[in-house]
Amino acid sequence: MTPTLELACDLIRRRSITPEDAGCMDLMIQRLKNIGFQTIRLRHGDTDNFWAVRNGQSAGPLLAFAGHTDVVPTGPEEHWCSPPFEPQIRDGFLYGRGAADMKGSLAAMVVACEAFVTEHPQHCGRIAFLVTSDEEGPAIDGTVKVIEWLQERGEQIDCCIVGEPSSSEHLGDVIKNGRRGSLGLALKVLGVQGHVAYPHLAKNPIHALAPALTELTTEKWDQGNQFFPATTFQVSNINGGTGVSNVIPAEVDLLCNWRFSTESSAEELELRTRRILDRYNLRYEADFNLSGTPFLTAGGPLVQAVQEAILTVTGIVTKLSTAGGTSDGRFIAPTGAQVVELGPVNATIHQIDECVKAQHLDQLKDIYREILRQLLASR
Amino acid sequence: MTPTLELACDLIRRRSITPEDAGCMDLMIQRLKNIGFQTIRLRHGDTDNFWAVRNGQSAGPLLAFAGHTDVVPTGPEEHWCSPPFEPQIRDGFLYGRGAADMKGSLAAMVVACEAFVTEHPQHCGRIAFLVTSDEEGPAIDGTVKVIEWLQERGEQIDCCIVGEPSSSEHLGDVIKNGRRGSLGLALKVLGVQGHVAYPHLAKNPIHALAPALTELTTEKWDQGNQFFPATTFQVSNINGGTGVSNVIPAEVDLLCNWRFSTESSAEELELRTRRILDRYNLRYEADFNLSGTPFLTAGGPLVQAVQEAILTVTGIVTKLSTAGGTSDGRFIAPTGAQVVELGPVNATIHQIDECVKAQHLDQLKDIYREILRQLLASR
Ligand SMILES: [Zn+2]
Ligand SMILES: [Zn+2]
Repeated sequence: MTPTLELACDLIRRRSITPEDAGCMDLMIQRLKNIGFQTIRLRHGDTDNFWAVRNGQSAGPLLAFAGHTDVVPTGPEEHWCSPPFEPQIRDGFLYGRGAADMKGSLAAMVVACEAFVTEHPQHCGRIAFLVTSDEEGPAIDGTVKVIEWLQERGEQIDCCIVGEPSSSEHLGDVIKNGRRGSLGLALKVLGVQGHVAYPHLAKNPIHALAPALTELTTEKWDQGNQFFPATTFQVSNINGGTGVSNVIPAEVDLLCNWRFSTESSAEELELRTRRILDRYNLRYEADFNLSGTPFLTAGGPLVQAVQEAILTVTGIVTKLSTAGGTSDGRFIAPTGAQVVELGPVNATIHQIDECVKAQHLDQLKDIYREILRQLLASR
Repeated sequence: MTPTLELACDLIRRRSITPEDAGCMDLMIQRLKNIGFQTIRLRHGDTDNFWAVRNGQSAGPLLAFAGHTDVVPTGPEEHWCSPPFEPQIRDGFLYGRGAADMKGSLAAMVVACEAFVTEHPQHCGRIAFLVTSDEEGPAIDGTVKVIEWLQERGEQIDCCIVGEPSSSEHLGDVIKNGRRGSLGLALKVLGVQGHVAYPHLAKNPIHALAPALTELTTEKWDQGNQFFPATTFQVSNINGGTGVSNVIPAEVDLLCNWRFSTESSAEELELRTRRILDRYNLRYEADFNLSGTPFLTAGGPLVQAVQEAILTVTGIVTKLSTAGGTSDGRFIAPTGAQVVELGPVNATIHQIDECVKAQHLDQLKDIYREILRQLLASR
C-alpha cells in the first residue's frame, strides 16, 4: 500500500453520504497542518467546508486544489461485491464508494503536496485547498459559500485544480477546461378545464402546447464553438390531467433544462423561449432558474502545466473537454480563476462497485506534484 | 301532488347512489305488475336490472322504456338547500338527487303506462321496461347485460325511449336521436432514459412525441354530417418524467379520446392514428378502447311519434340532436332498435340542488302516454 492508497482507504472508510463529512476533513486538515498549512473550517447549515493555505517564500500564483468529501448514496449495499465503506483492492482496483468520485483525488492531492513541500519547502506563491461536503447535494452551502467568503477577504485564486474524475479510459486522457451552463425552466401552460365531450367549451392546454413544444425541441439554439458543443434543450418532465379520462385538464406542467455553451447566455435563451411561447399565444407561467453559467479556461499557464504534467507522468497527450454535467468549477471560474478538472477514470462513478485503478491514484499524485513543480517550484 | 310527482318523490327518497338500487325497482315492479306486466330481475355483480313486458292483444311493435335508478353522488350534502334524498317542492321545482337524472322520467314512464293501459287495455304490440342501476357507473353489468340476455332469447326491441334528460330550456325542446361514438386511447411513447447533460446517449420520448402530438391535435378527422358535428380528439392526460429535473425519461403516457360521428369508424380512427405515429418513427404502445359506437335514428315511426307527441302536449317543435356524452342508447341501438332519448331539462344534473320543474314531470308523463297512443293504441 502506497501513502496515497492508504489515505484514500482511510477516507472511504468514513461514511460521508452527502452532506455528511464524517471526519474526512479532520483527516485531511491534520495532514495539511503537519506540512505548514493554515486551515479554517467554514460550516454552513449541515455542510462542512474548509479552506487551507500554505504560503510560499516568494511571490507567485495561488494554486488551489478543490474537491468534495461527500459521496452519493450506495444503492442496495448487498449488490456490492465488497461493502461500499470497506475499501478493498482486488485485481489492481480499489473498490469503495468515493474511490473515483472523489476521495482518491483528495488523497492524491494531499500526498502530492506532502511530497512537493518536502522537495520544495521554499516554494513560491501559495498552495490552497477548498473542500466541501456538499457537492453531490444541493450545492448551496458548499463551494459557493467559501468563494463568497474568499471574495469578501479579497482573496483571488489564480489557478484551480478540481479533482473531479475527468478521465475517460486512461488516466489523464481527458481534462475539463470548462463546463456548459445549466438553465432550468418550470413551465405551466394554462387552459380551461372541461369535459372531453364538449371541447368547444374548454381550452386544452396540452393541445395549445403541442406546436410550441415541437418548436422548442427542434430549435437550434447555437452551433457551439471550438470548445463547446451546441446548446441542448431537454424536457425532463411533463404532467397534465386529472387522472380521469373524460376531463380536459386546466393546465400542463413541464420541467425543462438547457445545457448551454458560451455562444448563448441565459438571458438570450429565456428571451427566445418566451418569443416561441408568445408566438403560439400560450397563456403560461415560466419560472427560469440559472444553476450555472458556462465557464471556460481556453488556455494559459494552468492548462499548459496540466498538459505537460500528464505527458511527463503518463506519456498521454491529454484532450480538453467541456462535456458532461456541471461541477463546482462553475462557482470558482467566475472569480477569474483558471480552472481545470483532472481526476481518475469516471466509468463507475455513482454506481454499484465504484472503483478506480489503484495504480492510477499514485500516478494522479505524481501528476498533481508535477503541476505544483511547474507552477510553484522554488527557482 | 300528482301521481307522477308522488312516485318521483318515492324514488328520490331511496338513496340509490350508483350502483345501488335501494328498492327503486321493487317500487316500479309492483306498479307494473298491477297493470299486467310480467317482470324479471336480472342481477349481475353488484348491479340490479329488470325487464318487464306487457303483451297486447294484437300484433304490433315492441316499445321499450329504458332508464336507470342509480344516481351520481351528492357532493357535500351541507351545500344542498334541502337534503338530496328528501324530495322537496319549492317555487314549482322538485329538488332532490335524481329529480332530473332520471327518477322523474321513471315516474313519468310508469304513470304514463298506467294511464295508457287503463285507456287501452287491448293495445297492440308490447310495452316493455329495461331498467338498470349501473348507468352512472362503469355500465358493465347493466343495460349491456340485459340486451345480451334479450338477444339470446331472440327478443327484438323495435322502438326504445330512453328517459335521459334531453331537454335544454323547455321540456321537449331537444331530443337525442343518436349519440357520437367514444373511442379511448392509452398511448405510451417509448424512448431511452438518460441524463439531460448527455442527450446524445438518450432518446427523449417527449421530444419524439411533440410533432406527432401537434398533428394529432390539429387533424380534421371528418366534417360531421347533417346529424353529427365533426369528430373531435382530446388528450386528457399526459405524464412523463421521474420527477427529478436532470433525467430524460424512458417513456411518456397519454390518455386520449375521440367523440366520433357516423362519418368515421373506430377502425379508421385507429388506422389514421397509427399512420401519424408511424410517420414520426415513434416507438409506442397504443391501446385503443371502444366504449361506444355512434348510433343514429335518422327518422322513422318512433321519431315521428315523439315529435308529434311533444307538439301535441307542449306546442313545441322539437329539435333532433346527437350532442353530448354517451348514454345506454349505445347498447340498445346496435340491435336494430329505433332509439330516442327524451326527458326533462338537464341544466342541473349531477350538480348540487339538482331539480326539475314539477309541472314538466306531468307533461313528460303526458308526452310518454301520447307516444304510446301513437304507436300502440288499439284500433
Ligand atoms: Zn464528484
Ligand atoms: Zn342519466
